[in-house]
Amino acid sequence: MEGTIKSRANYVPLTPISFLDRSAVVYAERTSVVYGSVTYTWRQTRDRCVRVASALSQLGISSGDVVSVLAPNVPAMVELHFAVPMAGALLCTLNIRHDSALVSVLLSHSETKVLFADHQFLQIAQGACEILSKKGEKVPLLVLIQEPSVVVSGKNKKRLMEYEDVVSMGKSNFQVIRPKDECDAISLNYTSGTTSSPKGVVYSHRGAYLNSLATVILNEMHSSPTFLWTNPMFHCNGWCLLWGVAAIGGINICLRNVTAKGIFDNIAKHNVTHMGGAPTILNMIVNASDSEKKPLPRKVSFITGAAPPPAHVIYKMEELGFSMFHSYGLTETYGPGTVCTWKPEWDSLPSEEQAKMKARQGVNHIGIEEVAVKDPVTLRTLPADGVSMGEVVFRGNTVMNGYLKNPEATKESFKGGWFWTGDLGVKHPDGYIELKDRSKDIIISGGENISSIEVESVLFTHPCVLEAAVVARPDEYWGETACAFVKLKDGSKATAEEIISYCRGKLPHYMAPRSIVFEDLPKTSTGKVQKFVLRTKAKAMGSLSKKGTSKL
Amino acid sequence: MEGTIKSRANYVPLTPISFLDRSAVVYAERTSVVYGSVTYTWRQTRDRCVRVASALSQLGISSGDVVSVLAPNVPAMVELHFAVPMAGALLCTLNIRHDSALVSVLLSHSETKVLFADHQFLQIAQGACEILSKKGEKVPLLVLIQEPSVVVSGKNKKRLMEYEDVVSMGKSNFQVIRPKDECDAISLNYTSGTTSSPKGVVYSHRGAYLNSLATVILNEMHSSPTFLWTNPMFHCNGWCLLWGVAAIGGINICLRNVTAKGIFDNIAKHNVTHMGGAPTILNMIVNASDSEKKPLPRKVSFITGAAPPPAHVIYKMEELGFSMFHSYGLTETYGPGTVCTWKPEWDSLPSEEQAKMKARQGVNHIGIEEVAVKDPVTLRTLPADGVSMGEVVFRGNTVMNGYLKNPEATKESFKGGWFWTGDLGVKHPDGYIELKDRSKDIIISGGENISSIEVESVLFTHPCVLEAAVVARPDEYWGETACAFVKLKDGSKATAEEIISYCRGKLPHYMAPRSIVFEDLPKTSTGKVQKFVLRTKAKAMGSLSKKGTSKL
Repeated sequence: MEGTIKSRANYVPLTPISFLDRSAVVYAERTSVVYGSVTYTWRQTRDRCVRVASALSQLGISSGDVVSVLAPNVPAMVELHFAVPMAGALLCTLNIRHDSALVSVLLSHSETKVLFADHQFLQIAQGACEILSKKGEKVPLLVLIQEPSVVVSGKNKKRLMEYEDVVSMGKSNFQVIRPKDECDAISLNYTSGTTSSPKGVVYSHRGAYLNSLATVILNEMHSSPTFLWTNPMFHCNGWCLLWGVAAIGGINICLRNVTAKGIFDNIAKHNVTHMGGAPTILNMIVNASDSEKKPLPRKVSFITGAAPPPAHVIYKMEELGFSMFHSYGLTETYGPGTVCTWKPEWDSLPSEEQAKMKARQGVNHIGIEEVAVKDPVTLRTLPADGVSMGEVVFRGNTVMNGYLKNPEATKESFKGGWFWTGDLGVKHPDGYIELKDRSKDIIISGGENISSIEVESVLFTHPCVLEAAVVARPDEYWGETACAFVKLKDGSKATAEEIISYCRGKLPHYMAPRSIVFEDLPKTSTGKVQKFVLRTKAKAMGSLSKKGTSKL
Repeated sequence: MEGTIKSRANYVPLTPISFLDRSAVVYAERTSVVYGSVTYTWRQTRDRCVRVASALSQLGISSGDVVSVLAPNVPAMVELHFAVPMAGALLCTLNIRHDSALVSVLLSHSETKVLFADHQFLQIAQGACEILSKKGEKVPLLVLIQEPSVVVSGKNKKRLMEYEDVVSMGKSNFQVIRPKDECDAISLNYTSGTTSSPKGVVYSHRGAYLNSLATVILNEMHSSPTFLWTNPMFHCNGWCLLWGVAAIGGINICLRNVTAKGIFDNIAKHNVTHMGGAPTILNMIVNASDSEKKPLPRKVSFITGAAPPPAHVIYKMEELGFSMFHSYGLTETYGPGTVCTWKPEWDSLPSEEQAKMKARQGVNHIGIEEVAVKDPVTLRTLPADGVSMGEVVFRGNTVMNGYLKNPEATKESFKGGWFWTGDLGVKHPDGYIELKDRSKDIIISGGENISSIEVESVLFTHPCVLEAAVVARPDEYWGETACAFVKLKDGSKATAEEIISYCRGKLPHYMAPRSIVFEDLPKTSTGKVQKFVLRTKAKAMGSLSKKGTSKL
């Protein structure tokens, strides 16, 4: 079009780095980070990030390199989310529940050049480096993130570079590296997943920018929120909220160990406005003892996701004064992809019904173009009738660039121009989706599909049940039956028979579990139950009925 | 990077069309538009937009064509903001204060194919078409936007196609056209400006998308706001808020004639949460009679811009219960480019001081990458000392694509990779900019720069002054002196001497006006005083002092 041009004046590649640059001016003297007695302002945070970027550059890091970090929700995590991209590199946040063997695999796969490790996880990191060394592979430079204000004993200090040394060696006037193309990679997130083979999910500057704004809007995060970090920063870059909080000059309250007491204490102390977490955190809050609980000084917006939250738990959270935002997404969608947007007409429903509405996964947020439920074979969109079950698919700017070095998996997951989640669900007539199961978690009993989530949601309403997970147990007669793994609340007592009979009162007979196992549930660090572990256990238990015979 | 791809699954060109598509699902049954007794839901609004797009396509409109509209804040304006881009075309919103001659020039320059004209402005539109016809130029197809529920007399009806006919002829299953490249043009805004030569400012889908989200965030517009349209929709596409309100499923309250009574009545009736307007609207509200005023049912966020609002007026607005957001930008920055973000430390300042802080133009919003004050000759950035005056410059994704068919003007305005605004200002040490004047409005008296805005802000504190504008009057001795054009409040009396002496009590002697003219101020339709008209008048008044002599 004559007279129009694309220039530096009117085109800037989208990147969350812009958020920090702006906040360092607009919110210069406002608090950015609080961690115990440590506090920074946004001006200080940017200065520290620029210096870390500068130091990384001095250490030989350049565009496209990978820098990894193994740390809980500490200030260095906030800074590395900006500092690493500012050096032109990708940030790879490792799951702190991993062991040395798995960490070494991920370091190798990602070709990590520098590894930042929190002192609490130093041994894991060192173990991983030893494994790499023994294999003759390149070992990354290890940098220790020491607890602020803790003086390290001489020995360690000599051997390892420390995070604060890195900050000190950097220059404040370092020329920050911006992405040439906004679709360039900003970070790498290995799926912790419910399966055993992690894949490296690549995020772009553009997707990170857009998902940050989408999460800010969906969480109704207004100017200067105070965000308590109870969801792990290493998971989907903290659901992009590390960048989102920077975009609007909020305060990051860092928390190393997430406990019920820690949550209530910090909410009261810092007048927290927003926080987030998987259903495990909800359970922790809802089941806190009276001595741990404290009244909330104000309404706290709570974004939950990572696993479908039972309606019953949402209801209890709201009773405690939390305002619940239920979001759904995957590592491949930068965390949140849908949100169960509240409708005013639901205000008049009974509370339990309201909680059921909130337990649905909802509608695509503003960064996702479209969410649909499709037949995985024909690739056709299924009707929005609340009944037709198919695979949930996404399309939009906040879907990953792909799986690192795994073009086959990328191609497979993007078939037909959609990202296939592997989650089974329905779309209701109002356009809201509801998950029914992971495709591999569905139980097929006598030819009928049983949604493990539906069975679990009934188990959660039992007064003695703290946690529950349902998987298929092979059966000679039925093919599969539902087997429930249950953790009871402290001091509660219930027998398997009581629980089975309770479920039979609330579910079609064939859906009720036929066996109950009482035990602690194995979980990923992001709070997802590792169903593949339970499936192995259920398999080992063998068939309940014999071939050709079955008592109902 | 191996394993990553750019596909339909993970890349969608940014466009506000996505907002409407999403809102038609998420906010399907929620009200989108209210105009008198007419109301629509978001599902209906999208359906009507798709049909108008379909009809335009049937009428021969295709990608890159221009469709213009001459209308006040009526529902068709809301719809055309989506329908025209959905047909692949550009929307050109014409200023309703223009006469037929100017409209014909703009229709010709933009090569408008279809012109929608509100019945109130039909004669202007028909006059413009006649001029084009006489010149032998192509005449656009004229479509009448009739007042809803008004039946038109047979005569007109036969001759002209009507907007509702267009809606009816379109198909609901029309395949909406999305931009191939997100930098493609979405709209054309002719600068009404304070000068006489309008330029066609081209906006892109990308810029419109990003500025919409930026304005939603800067206005703290949460889920489902109710927006009262008192700023013109034809100006900068309603500061991008037409698209912004759709992004979050808000309600557009349309208002044909903006009056003090209409404003207060609508706020009360619809429980308005947000609105906006130039300082003329502020004046209208602040000076409303007691019979026109009504108590606000809740705090109303008011975004003001288009001209620097006097601190005194901001103060009075807040007293009335409005929460003021002061934004600054130009047509070339999609409307808002900066916002005077409030700092908590200002809470303890006296109210008048707070209003002064709010009267500053502030810091770049999230869509603009950087705002600076530069020396227009050396192009160097001036220090942020609150004193060094230079030209305000912008850089970012919400700066226009350029001036249509005017590559020279585009090149000139983008020199050195920045957009040069023509506004003079300073940057304070806290990074906030403050306008001092348009470069052509500065008065140079005895070698000293006088900011006309500073003199005006003093005039506004005078109890009898309703409106004021200060320009240079040529002077044989001083070069120039300040000449004030003043409109007094109804029933107020004040002499020129009284006002001059009042100003001398509050300003350095050389800055105070030396002549006062009482009269109504000439204004552009967007509320900007046409200083070039006043300058011509002041010039005609001649010198106050004789060469070589001057009494102070």
